[in-house]
Amino acid sequence: MPPRTRDPSSDPFREASPDASAGGAEPRRVLSGELIELLAAQLGTDAILTDPSETFVYENDGSILHPAAPSAVVFPRSTEDVGHVVRTCTAFDVPYVARGAGTGLSGGAMALDGGVVVALNRMDRILDVDVFNRRLTAQPGVTNLALSRAVAEHDLYYAPDPSSQAVCTIGGNVAHNSGGPHTLKYGVTVNHVVGLELVLPDGSIVNVGGSERGGYDLLALLTGSEGTLGIVTAVTVRLLRKPEAVRTLLAAFATPLQASRAVSAIIAAGIVPAALEMLDAEVVAALEAAFGFRFPTGAGALLVVESDGPREGIDEEAETIAALCRDHEAIHVRLAADEAERNEVWKARKQAFGALGRVAPNYCTQDGVIPRTRLPEILERIAEIGERHQLRVANVFHAGDGNLHPCILFDERDQDQARRVVTAGAEILRACVELGGSLSGEHGIGVEKREWMAAMFAEQDLALMERLRNAFDPRRLCNPLKILPTGGRCVELAPSRRQAAL
Amino acid sequence: MPPRTRDPSSDPFREASPDASAGGAEPRRVLSGELIELLAAQLGTDAILTDPSETFVYENDGSILHPAAPSAVVFPRSTEDVGHVVRTCTAFDVPYVARGAGTGLSGGAMALDGGVVVALNRMDRILDVDVFNRRLTAQPGVTNLALSRAVAEHDLYYAPDPSSQAVCTIGGNVAHNSGGPHTLKYGVTVNHVVGLELVLPDGSIVNVGGSERGGYDLLALLTGSEGTLGIVTAVTVRLLRKPEAVRTLLAAFATPLQASRAVSAIIAAGIVPAALEMLDAEVVAALEAAFGFRFPTGAGALLVVESDGPREGIDEEAETIAALCRDHEAIHVRLAADEAERNEVWKARKQAFGALGRVAPNYCTQDGVIPRTRLPEILERIAEIGERHQLRVANVFHAGDGNLHPCILFDERDQDQARRVVTAGAEILRACVELGGSLSGEHGIGVEKREWMAAMFAEQDLALMERLRNAFDPRRLCNPLKILPTGGRCVELAPSRRQAAL
Repeated sequence: MPPRTRDPSSDPFREASPDASAGGAEPRRVLSGELIELLAAQLGTDAILTDPSETFVYENDGSILHPAAPSAVVFPRSTEDVGHVVRTCTAFDVPYVARGAGTGLSGGAMALDGGVVVALNRMDRILDVDVFNRRLTAQPGVTNLALSRAVAEHDLYYAPDPSSQAVCTIGGNVAHNSGGPHTLKYGVTVNHVVGLELVLPDGSIVNVGGSERGGYDLLALLTGSEGTLGIVTAVTVRLLRKPEAVRTLLAAFATPLQASRAVSAIIAAGIVPAALEMLDAEVVAALEAAFGFRFPTGAGALLVVESDGPREGIDEEAETIAALCRDHEAIHVRLAADEAERNEVWKARKQAFGALGRVAPNYCTQDGVIPRTRLPEILERIAEIGERHQLRVANVFHAGDGNLHPCILFDERDQDQARRVVTAGAEILRACVELGGSLSGEHGIGVEKREWMAAMFAEQDLALMERLRNAFDPRRLCNPLKILPTGGRCVELAPSRRQAAL
Repeated sequence: MPPRTRDPSSDPFREASPDASAGGAEPRRVLSGELIELLAAQLGTDAILTDPSETFVYENDGSILHPAAPSAVVFPRSTEDVGHVVRTCTAFDVPYVARGAGTGLSGGAMALDGGVVVALNRMDRILDVDVFNRRLTAQPGVTNLALSRAVAEHDLYYAPDPSSQAVCTIGGNVAHNSGGPHTLKYGVTVNHVVGLELVLPDGSIVNVGGSERGGYDLLALLTGSEGTLGIVTAVTVRLLRKPEAVRTLLAAFATPLQASRAVSAIIAAGIVPAALEMLDAEVVAALEAAFGFRFPTGAGALLVVESDGPREGIDEEAETIAALCRDHEAIHVRLAADEAERNEVWKARKQAFGALGRVAPNYCTQDGVIPRTRLPEILERIAEIGERHQLRVANVFHAGDGNLHPCILFDERDQDQARRVVTAGAEILRACVELGGSLSGEHGIGVEKREWMAAMFAEQDLALMERLRNAFDPRRLCNPLKILPTGGRCVELAPSRRQAAL
């Protein structure tokens, strides 16, 4: 295909600066009494917050962006409630934004422009479990882990497993098309959602299914649309049978380059591990310091490789992986002997962010994608960017699918350092795009990366997205000022915000 | 989720009648000389057909619908050519429709309303092969099989394998989101396409990639949109490594019910075969008569079950499948001993339609989907429908994913019989929808099933699709009168048309 058209004189990444304005965000509005009354009439007075001392809690999600206070927060319990909220807000020309657990990292659940937060936490019922056809339907506020728990007795589970799965909601997962450590083999949310019910910006309630129903496949379009095309009120997912057997292996290498080569060798051997995660020396040191994991001395990079499937053949696959790691100069390879050891390995992976929180006052987690084959290059460039800005960068990432999570460590009290964090983050993303990757693997574009979309897409590609969005939401009241560039400069960083764990 | 809103007084399936008008189709137009000149200026005079004796060939695809003559047929060679055709047709308010090999079965490539056929056969170059990242980019006119052939030397292949793969094109596959016998394990086209270049109805050229790029996932929306949202001019697919080992098994059962139970048992055992196909007694008899396959006596249903994957464990899986078939009263189970025997089994499956063509003057292949668990029920209902209309129905289908292809045998010279074929086809599809399935597994909605969409989707769901289509094509010149109901009655059947093999 011909290269994307791009104006060489513009560089969206150069615009990234903590001093820049949030481009369109306006101060909190005072909502009319009539609007509040109409909302209360349907939802009940206990389902609306308007006092700034209460709405304050909802001024951000897990992002480190400058907060934006909502004018009100409402707590619908049903699809009809959501429909009422959308229609009422629209009648009063007030923007609104759906919110799940608030664990998002790109500001997608922020109520810019003085909007109303539609908090879906009370829509937390599992509506239907169909064990025979392996389907489950839930309201959007059900947590990811609760889906799997609800069907565990039938030996089934819901595959996508973001690290925040104990708290993040299926509605938020749909909005971000979330993945997790097992994305390499099992895919992301869109690969497991088979139906959505949603309230459109015009207040109508629609049901969309996948391509197997005929007509346009709106399911994939809506999954990952970050709540900008409507509010999801029910999600039907397919369930998987728990794998018969699992083997988890931890391999230590002297350098990330060697570990990257082992990753390439495993994939080249035609193996699709269930998970293939990498942690660098900075993370290893933090884990040692925080939790006293006894990793091999001299480990500059750790790989966590998991195989799952039928019992038949699984030991052979694990052995092949171990041999490939040894061939690529692993200094230590350990196959978890039992469930306890397996949990220990995953604890190391999943507590990585927590450990980083102990060695630095703050950290900023980036989310970029590169072709798997460019791993060594991007790691070199990240190291160079960190050094140049005198910042420590720790890397925890989904090596198998090239989804990076570089964590820039800093101290919010040092304002100059905080500014350098934003610049370095932008440079890392630019490097990802330059290496043929993309801006976001799973954390979304939200507010944080909207201006950078111009680096990823040609003008006409973005124009098409605009047109599509207008088809759903011509008045731009449904989670406005997200995803698509506003033409403004990049958003304001608020390093005083608490850091969310991945 | 709440049930779909549906007006109980209307029954789109009742409207199906061969006497009904094609709803909006107009006679061939005479194009202005200026339009022809403008097209010739860019494409060359050898790239335009306007003489009815030549355009005649393009009046239908593989459907049995009443033909519609195009006003002209053009043969672009490049993306720029396609852009020029779209812009020129739009300037003259003339509809246009993309066409690949013309193997579609629902009339999707028909030029209704006197439109221009944009035949993509000369856009048949493979543009890029990236063995390392397992990606291939091709123009839309490259055949499905040519993709796999181009990379066979690297031990790679393109997974979706429609039975027409030797002739059908990747552009047509994208338009229909085509599957094939290996869909059960490997999915359909959308699971293997990673990028599309297309000319939009406004003449702009856009590139869309999957969700990993951020922003709206237009790839899945466009895949399967049957050429109504633009014309695809380049397709990037991912390639798979050929499986290390393959085991193919043929099992014969006395009745389809027993075979259906074996299918359920295989799936319930947690096995995902690469293919799981069923042929009924009518097909078995036709294959015997036509090609002398020596199937076991008394076979009322055949299953073709294929396993593939690492050599490790594959014999055990094949053995488990064989045992499950025997447990469900298979009267004969044969594991293909070598490549020659495997080819023999697939020859039986792939020649099924050809064999049917020998036992009846004509046949009409339907395409419906049901939940896999309802297989026995739908087979009973199909048999009942056939008996009631005094029609023989043969069943060849993708049992593993519940995608049915009932073939109604008939003789076009018997007009009354031909009418009954259409009614019976509609009744079969209605039964699929009633059993919780859908109108089309892989043949598309096209012209044939557009009015029946109202049975599948609620009014507001269809309104959303309308709005979306208008966002792409407000003037409705890009393959108009397809997919969405026109409000007219169902389309005219032309039983004099030759039958296309699946």
